[in-house]
Amino acid sequence: MTAIGRRVGIDVGGTKALGVALDADGEVVAEDRRPTPRGDGSIDALLDTLVELAESLGVDADLGIGVPGLVTRDGRLRAAPNLDGVADLPIGELLGERLGFDVRVDNDATCATVAEWRNGVGIGTDDLLLVTLGTGIGGGVVANGTLQRGTNGFAGEFGHMVVDPHGPRCPCGRQGCWERYASGSGLAMLAREAATGHRLRAVVEHADGDAQAVRGEHVMAAALDGDTEALAVIDDFGRWVALGLSNLTNVFDPEIFVLGGGLAAGAELYLEPITRWYGELLYQPHLRPLPRIEFARWGPLAGAVGAALLSSIPD
Amino acid sequence: MTAIGRRVGIDVGGTKALGVALDADGEVVAEDRRPTPRGDGSIDALLDTLVELAESLGVDADLGIGVPGLVTRDGRLRAAPNLDGVADLPIGELLGERLGFDVRVDNDATCATVAEWRNGVGIGTDDLLLVTLGTGIGGGVVANGTLQRGTNGFAGEFGHMVVDPHGPRCPCGRQGCWERYASGSGLAMLAREAATGHRLRAVVEHADGDAQAVRGEHVMAAALDGDTEALAVIDDFGRWVALGLSNLTNVFDPEIFVLGGGLAAGAELYLEPITRWYGELLYQPHLRPLPRIEFARWGPLAGAVGAALLSSIPD
Repeated sequence: MTAIGRRVGIDVGGTKALGVALDADGEVVAEDRRPTPRGDGSIDALLDTLVELAESLGVDADLGIGVPGLVTRDGRLRAAPNLDGVADLPIGELLGERLGFDVRVDNDATCATVAEWRNGVGIGTDDLLLVTLGTGIGGGVVANGTLQRGTNGFAGEFGHMVVDPHGPRCPCGRQGCWERYASGSGLAMLAREAATGHRLRAVVEHADGDAQAVRGEHVMAAALDGDTEALAVIDDFGRWVALGLSNLTNVFDPEIFVLGGGLAAGAELYLEPITRWYGELLYQPHLRPLPRIEFARWGPLAGAVGAALLSSIPD
Repeated sequence: MTAIGRRVGIDVGGTKALGVALDADGEVVAEDRRPTPRGDGSIDALLDTLVELAESLGVDADLGIGVPGLVTRDGRLRAAPNLDGVADLPIGELLGERLGFDVRVDNDATCATVAEWRNGVGIGTDDLLLVTLGTGIGGGVVANGTLQRGTNGFAGEFGHMVVDPHGPRCPCGRQGCWERYASGSGLAMLAREAATGHRLRAVVEHADGDAQAVRGEHVMAAALDGDTEALAVIDDFGRWVALGLSNLTNVFDPEIFVLGGGLAAGAELYLEPITRWYGELLYQPHLRPLPRIEFARWGPLAGAVGAALLSSIPD
């Protein structure tokens, strides 16, 4: 870590790597992106891409990387379903060898947590949970003023909390994981289940008339048009999101929830049902101040901004 | 807090208050108990009883109290369903006024967590979750080497994590809370559900032939006799316990689970099914060392021992 100089962070996604450079105040002063290499030999190509991207952003000695997968506390990427060829990759060490300085690596949702905690909607709080609502659900934990990584580095995998053991099968092998309901793919599933006969016609029209092709964005589009059936699906979705937030409240007792991920773009649709159901589902709501529920400040930049801030967080 | 002198801790239960005194090594050198006062005027009577009990144990200036309920970070007992007349009781402050020194107060499961972490099966670990399996489920959290209380002091309420939104109604008002299944009352419910026709005859016999009177201890008694139907209920119970532990693993990534509470007395029956199902239900078990699952060292003394150790834990 360097106290002066620019801090660069890169969020490695399945399709693109997004990089930012921050000034001393933590504001974004440069932004760049590259396609994420795929297929054979993609690990070397990935490292090349990340070095090139970091250099294009003027990196000198402070680089952090956010990656989509399980990251050990010493910066090894244990598994990343959306990155080709990755299995137990010491990505920080390999990048450090190429660049000549230490590179910090953490899970992408953990990075987003850092962004919102240190320089987003969670500034000044000691107990914050970030939940990314995207294709799946990721998460990050700040408790008692400390970023929590767990004994292996795998804390915050909220999406695979089982909330209905008789629920739909999850690709992870179990049934009824929270992300089967409360993610983008969950929203689509709730809509497809509801789209029988003539129900949800407006939503199905947004999917070119094919009920099986309905995705979360089609529900959102119809709901934004004011379609009441689509709004009922959004309400059901809000209940599932709130159920998981309520569980996490019992477990952590946070001061604030920050909701990020791709679905944060629809915040104005979701926030009311999520907040209302959360009030219904919370254990003993009359005995505590309700945690704040807010959408992330940094939107799609959160992972990269947080990666750039990793060097400011104690190990 | 005093660095020298004896440390006294009292675990206040719904029926009795149990006190211990510890020597400098944290070993129990004295133990005493009193019935918990009930009915009208019981708060003054409770304070009298606790002072008397502490004095009988030779307290000088170091007393900790564990109470069954939600305790704020400044030692107020917000709610305690099993203590008469308690609502937002500043129990630490009131005891401190009577005794002339500061008295620490925390939730009873949090106290048990301290006992096992500082002087029990979790010595030396930085990431520990304690789960008390009793009439309900309580819990406590150590993460990154710090006892975690949450922003209000209410962290660790694991029992009210919803694991099946279509499940049985919980007294808390919701459906399918974990403690509906994985507690002593959960074990009894699983047995009563299974006891149709001639099924579970051995268990029902232990309950004097009344299927509706079956309690967890009747299932245990029949299982200890080797009754295969009772063992099947224990297996189902083990699956529910494991489901919650798996959820908590995704969330915290602990190094060790410590199981305490009344059901810990049946450890030899439960540990195998819990451990086996946990291996089945855990997310990506091949990518991490499995957390240890152990039963508490301190058994019924855990709350009192941990209360005595509260003064050694930073606020």
